[in-house]
Amino acid sequence: MKKLFAGLALSVLTFTGTSLSFAEMKVEDAIYYRKAGYGFMSWNMGKIKAQTVDESAPFNKDQIIAAANAIAAVANSGMGALYPPGSDMSKVKDTKLKPEFFQNMEEVGKIGENFNAAANNLATVAATGDKAAIAKAFGETGEACKACHDKFRAK
Amino acid sequence: MKKLFAGLALSVLTFTGTSLSFAEMKVEDAIYYRKAGYGFMSWNMGKIKAQTVDESAPFNKDQIIAAANAIAAVANSGMGALYPPGSDMSKVKDTKLKPEFFQNMEEVGKIGENFNAAANNLATVAATGDKAAIAKAFGETGEACKACHDKFRAK
Repeated sequence: MKKLFAGLALSVLTFTGTSLSFAEMKVEDAIYYRKAGYGFMSWNMGKIKAQTVDESAPFNKDQIIAAANAIAAVANSGMGALYPPGSDMSKVKDTKLKPEFFQNMEEVGKIGENFNAAANNLATVAATGDKAAIAKAFGETGEACKACHDKFRAK
Repeated sequence: MKKLFAGLALSVLTFTGTSLSFAEMKVEDAIYYRKAGYGFMSWNMGKIKAQTVDESAPFNKDQIIAAANAIAAVANSGMGALYPPGSDMSKVKDTKLKPEFFQNMEEVGKIGENFNAAANNLATVAATGDKAAIAKAFGETGEACKACHDKFRAK
């Protein structure tokens, strides 16, 4: 499995290591695709939250598993390739990515690894059907999302 | 696993059966989330195409597996819940969904099942690393996408 940001720093330096290399993909397309990934994870996070934390929807194990698998699969899909140089808000409209992202690649890598670990753990825990454990793993995944939002996403 | 459109016809009738029921989700949000799902699948389809059909990018088994898993997980996530009544282009901007979609739920269900089967097969075949077989499974998945686009998506 590719990690979310695994190899990103290297990719930024070499313009290779991705199936559609930065050189081949328009910055606008990369932003479109990465926002699609986060948007889709958001829907699935919302389903898990509603069923396990808020309890505003009935708990449905199959739906939780499907949602957690979707989040993990998106996280594992190599989204680091969708962060080409120059794809921040100082250079492109329609993104909230701060330019600091590209000045802190080591931290970005750690945040990405933490997120991937949390998303994969959520999928593992979802398979057990243990509602309280899922709620906990969901919270940890949300915190891992927030770590990047707090640092690198503009309000 | 939830199928893409499994239970959609029932959901349309009952407004239940989804974690965030149609009654709770704004039509605009449903459209946003479903477009995110299709957009993200599109990126992953593009990676598989480039590496196995076009051969414009080097074949990377790990990337192919991750991409195919992402497509299958999105397909299995219960996207039928993102087609609330009235979420077609006759009533809402920003969608190309034809109103005929809601008048042909049986056909929609079959198209959805075919797509899910093709996406899950693509993930299974991807795991083997057999490039030619992956290209074939990719083609079948693309055809399954196209079946819905041809019928229910405006140009």
